[in-house]
Formats: sequence, C-alpha cells, structure tokens
Amino acid sequence: MRTIIGVMGSGRPLDGAALHVAHDLGARIAAEGWVLLTGGRAAGVMDAASRGAREAGGLVVGVLPDEDSSAASSYLDIAIRTGMGDARNVVNVLSSDVVVALPGGPGTVSEVALALKAGRTVIVLGWDPGDVLRISAEGRLLDAKDIDDAVALTKRVLAHDLRERTL
Amino acid sequence: MRTIIGVMGSGRPLDGAALHVAHDLGARIAAEGWVLLTGGRAAGVMDAASRGAREAGGLVVGVLPDEDSSAASSYLDIAIRTGMGDARNVVNVLSSDVVVALPGGPGTVSEVALALKAGRTVIVLGWDPGDVLRISAEGRLLDAKDIDDAVALTKRVLAHDLRERTL
Amino acid sequence: MRTIIGVMGSGRPLDGAALHVAHDLGARIAAEGWVLLTGGRAAGVMDAASRGAREAGGLVVGVLPDEDSSAASSYLDIAIRTGMGDARNVVNVLSSDVVVALPGGPGTVSEVALALKAGRTVIVLGWDPGDVLRISAEGRLLDAKDIDDAVALTKRVLAHDLRERTL
Amino acid sequence: MRTIIGVMGSGRPLDGAALHVAHDLGARIAAEGWVLLTGGRAAGVMDAASRGAREAGGLVVGVLPDEDSSAASSYLDIAIRTGMGDARNVVNVLSSDVVVALPGGPGTVSEVALALKAGRTVIVLGWDPGDVLRISAEGRLLDAKDIDDAVALTKRVLAHDLRERTL
Repeated sequence: MRTIIGVMGSGRPLDGAALHVAHDLGARIAAEGWVLLTGGRAAGVMDAASRGAREAGGLVVGVLPDEDSSAASSYLDIAIRTGMGDARNVVNVLSSDVVVALPGGPGTVSEVALALKAGRTVIVLGWDPGDVLRISAEGRLLDAKDIDDAVALTKRVLAHDLRERTL
Repeated sequence: MRTIIGVMGSGRPLDGAALHVAHDLGARIAAEGWVLLTGGRAAGVMDAASRGAREAGGLVVGVLPDEDSSAASSYLDIAIRTGMGDARNVVNVLSSDVVVALPGGPGTVSEVALALKAGRTVIVLGWDPGDVLRISAEGRLLDAKDIDDAVALTKRVLAHDLRERTL
Repeated sequence: MRTIIGVMGSGRPLDGAALHVAHDLGARIAAEGWVLLTGGRAAGVMDAASRGAREAGGLVVGVLPDEDSSAASSYLDIAIRTGMGDARNVVNVLSSDVVVALPGGPGTVSEVALALKAGRTVIVLGWDPGDVLRISAEGRLLDAKDIDDAVALTKRVLAHDLRERTL
Repeated sequence: MRTIIGVMGSGRPLDGAALHVAHDLGARIAAEGWVLLTGGRAAGVMDAASRGAREAGGLVVGVLPDEDSSAASSYLDIAIRTGMGDARNVVNVLSSDVVVALPGGPGTVSEVALALKAGRTVIVLGWDPGDVLRISAEGRLLDAKDIDDAVALTKRVLAHDLRERTL
C-alpha cells in the first residue's frame, strides 16, 4: 500500500509566494514517491499542490466534497467523489499517513483539528493553528521552517510510525 | 420546525465549574423553548448540557458518532446514530441554528471551524478558538461573557437570521 | 430515549391510495407514542407520513440529504441537516429502531438493504424488495398485510429487541 | 483524470468459481488501463478483484468503511479510509464511472441502488438485483453474459458517457 501525504490549505486564490510553496511541496512529495492527497478542487492549495505533484510525475488523489468532477482540479489522477460536503474533510485526514497544513481558513483548521483527533501528526508550514490545537496535540503538531524541513519532518514521522507498527 | 441550538465542548470529564456551566446552559436553552443538540455521548459537555436541558423539561437531540446507542447520554430524547465517527461533526453544526461552544479540544475546534465554514454564527463561552478562526469568521464568532450573555446573543442571532430570511 | 420508527418510501408524487397509506401510517406511529423518522423532504412518503404524524400530535424527525432546510417538509419538528446526499440513508436506518418500507425506487431499496446490513428488522408494506434481500434478511424482512399489521409487527419487533437486550 | 471502474459484490468467502470471476474481472479492468475501485477489505469480491488487477499491473483503490487499514486487502495501492461504515458505499458508486456488480448480499444491493439513484450505469454479472431496481433503472441496468461481455458493455457505456459530455 502506498504512502499518502495529505496537503491541506486555503481554497481561495493564492498570491505568488503561497502558490509557489504549494506547488513545490506537491513536487517534493511526488519526488519522494509518496501519493499526494488533497481536497481535489481546482482552487488554492488543492490545485497548486496537485499541479506540482503531477508535473513531477507523481500520483494525485483528490477527495472532492462534490458528487461530480465539475469543480475538480485538472491535475488529479484519481477523483474520489464523496457528495458529502465538508464531511469529506474526515476522509482526507484519515486517508493521509501524514498531514501537511499550509495557511488556510476554517476548512483547513477543521482538517488540522480532525487529523489531531484521529491521532495523525500534522506538520504546519507558515502559520499557527492556535493554542488549543497546539496544546491538545501533545507533540503531534510540528512546525516546519520551510519546505525542506516539512519533507524531513514527514520522513521522520513516517519512520517513527513504521517503527511503532513493527514493535 | 423547532429552533435547534447546538452546544459543543469537551468530551472529557469536567471539573465542577465547567460541569455547572454546561448543565446550566442546557437548562437555559430548554427554558427558552429551543431544542438542544449535542454530540450525544455520556461524557463531558454533551452529557452535562443534555442533563440540564432534560431536567428543565426540554427536548434533547444527540447526534452520535456511533452506530448504536451504547455510549449515549441517558438524557437524550432523540438519538441520531450516524456510525460516521467525527464526520458527524458536520451534521451537528448544519443542524444547529446557532452553535454555542464551551471549552474543548480538537473535536470542539473542528466543530467551530465547520460551523463558521457553513455560515453559522458561533457563540464562544470561556475560551478562545484562535486567531485564524476569529479573523475568517468576519463577525460571526461572538464572545459571551457568561451564560446570560450567551442566551442573549443567541436570541439576537436568531432574530437577525429570521429578519434576513424574511427580507 | 424515545423509540424511533423510520418510514421509508418513494420521494415522488403519490397517488391517492399511496398518500393515504403513508399519512395513516404516520398517524398510527404517533398514536403509539413513537417518534417518526423520515428522509425529511417535502415530497412523497416523507411528506405524507410526516403530515400524518404531526396532525396526530406526534414528534417528527427528518434527516435531510441537504445542508439547509429549503426542501424540507413543513411537518417536521426536528430537521437534521446532513449535507451528505444519499449517505444520509445510513443515518436514517441506524437511527430507526424499526424500519417500515412503503413502495419506492432505488433510494428506498438502498435503505431496506442498508437496514438489513445494519441488523435492523424491516417491515415491508405493499411491495417486494426482491429475493436477494429477502434471502439475506434471514427472517428480518417481514411482510405486513396492511397498516394494522405493520403496527402490530412493529410492536412485536420492539418487544423482541427489548427482550434480547434485557437477557 | 483516470477512468475508474467500481467492482462490487459479496464480502463473504467466495467459492472457486466466484473467486475466479472476481479475480479475472479485476485483471481485465487493469488490462484496459482503467483504475479498479472496490470496498477495500481483505474479503470476498473486494480482495479477489483487487488481487486480479494488481497482478495484472493495474492501479487499485479501496474505499474502506474503517478508519484504519487493519482490515484492508493487501492488494490495494491506495487506501481511502473513511471511518463511515456503509455510508462509504455512496463514495464507492459516486467515484466509479461505471459500476460492475457481482453477486452479493444487502451491501451489494445497496450499492447497485445508490449507483442507479446517482445516475450511474450498473452492469450486473451472474445475478438479478430485483424488479424494483430493474424498472427504476430505465435502461441503466445492463446484464452481462460473461466477463468479456461485462468489459464490452463497460466500454460502450464509457464511450456513450463521453459522447454525452462532449455534446
């Protein structure tokens, strides 16, 4: 079974710097041989990370809130159509082995919260989801300094989780 | 159709003061003739608020993450069994006309975030869900000073929403 | 916790006889002191049964596929807004202590199937959901001759389930 | 975006003939370059079809009812963990461009019903889901004589749907 890294973040139009981070993160995830999972829409971080992963030859899964693909990013390989609106946020985080969260709004905060609740480690890059989540995370909310650091932290978490399962 | 007020908050054991607030809030919601909606379990805010509403003669709906009622609060009138885990958090907030959030962990933060994303007004009592949610709420995150204030704010939001729908 | 009886059936316009059956069944469920649960929309069996229960003084819960109440029956007391489309069919059957299925299309068949899969007893009135479901039901698919029989069978199932839980 | 073919069917142990059909169908789907989607568990049709597709070099997506992968087929490439129980059946059929249904129990019937409700064409091989579904399908329930026929029908449906979208 392939390792899946979820990338969450704003669904709004991104400025140049944010676009670059999302695109580059997607590309780096693909370069590691991991599958990229996003919320699937042709918008914001979802679209930019998908494009980055796709252009780097990676496999991209989008878990859509919609029941059809009309709003889907054109950079998806696999469109999971849920028809469940934001209830699909739970599917996003459960399906991800590690969640990387870029800056976003309430949707992104809900995914960080649901990921922590489900026992996932969340790597945050470029923003702060707040003290309540930080404290309740008990060490599973990690701050990345940059994309290199986000990838390095992801590797470390995957190695740790593998060790846990092997013990 | 009856007005439904969702009360969210910690699912962990509460200390005496927190227990009192949740119980009293449930009672006040019942006294206003509103239906109380919670996450349904026999734990924390869910149970205490349900008990308060029930003892005050109110109607209590619990939207359970479980597929059966074995973990349900004994103060529910109506148990909605979803079998969907935390995906039911979306059902909680969509079904509530107003959400009141007491202190909690990642589950509660996810509900505040999902409520704001869904366009609900959230009344927060006794904690701060963080700057990201506060800023993205654009005025729909209200801080209550105490239970009286939470009830007064709820009335104001309901009146405002009714006015919007009538226009 | 109150006993909930789910009534499923066509969401299309009903002819006079079918309308009468759905309305009368709702009324009889209310008369027994049970809560009526339907799919919540202002259409077909959902609306007619809700009206029957409401006019008989009962409590009516509608579990809507929608994220708002714009398509809801005006005879609901409690609108559970899921925003999940037909995934809410699972919520309908899990939340019902007994399911009564009137004639319907694929949505109704899905609910009978999901109810049987979840271990519920399904009482069928006026149609046949097919051999596959009948055989896999292992005695939990009961045919009612008329509304009186449907109510009598419901009582018998509730009593049996209560006995099982008490043992 | 890649074409996804959903294969549904019994989650119980299969006899030799049924095992062969499921395995072969998975292999044929992979050979056509389509992605196979199943319910993801290490059981029945889900496991056999996944193995067939995987051994033929195909890509396999499993949409699990569970919140972890402990019950997952070892032949999945992508595990979508929903934690939603049978509500994931809706995700299965919405995500599939065409659904092929092998013999099964109530879970499979629910998927055929939900697929038809969602406007999908369902190809049935080796069983009959019943008259109600057949009639309400209005031509979207097709009977395959054998695996060759199932693949040929799938191609025809995909070509038809493509034509519809292009018009």
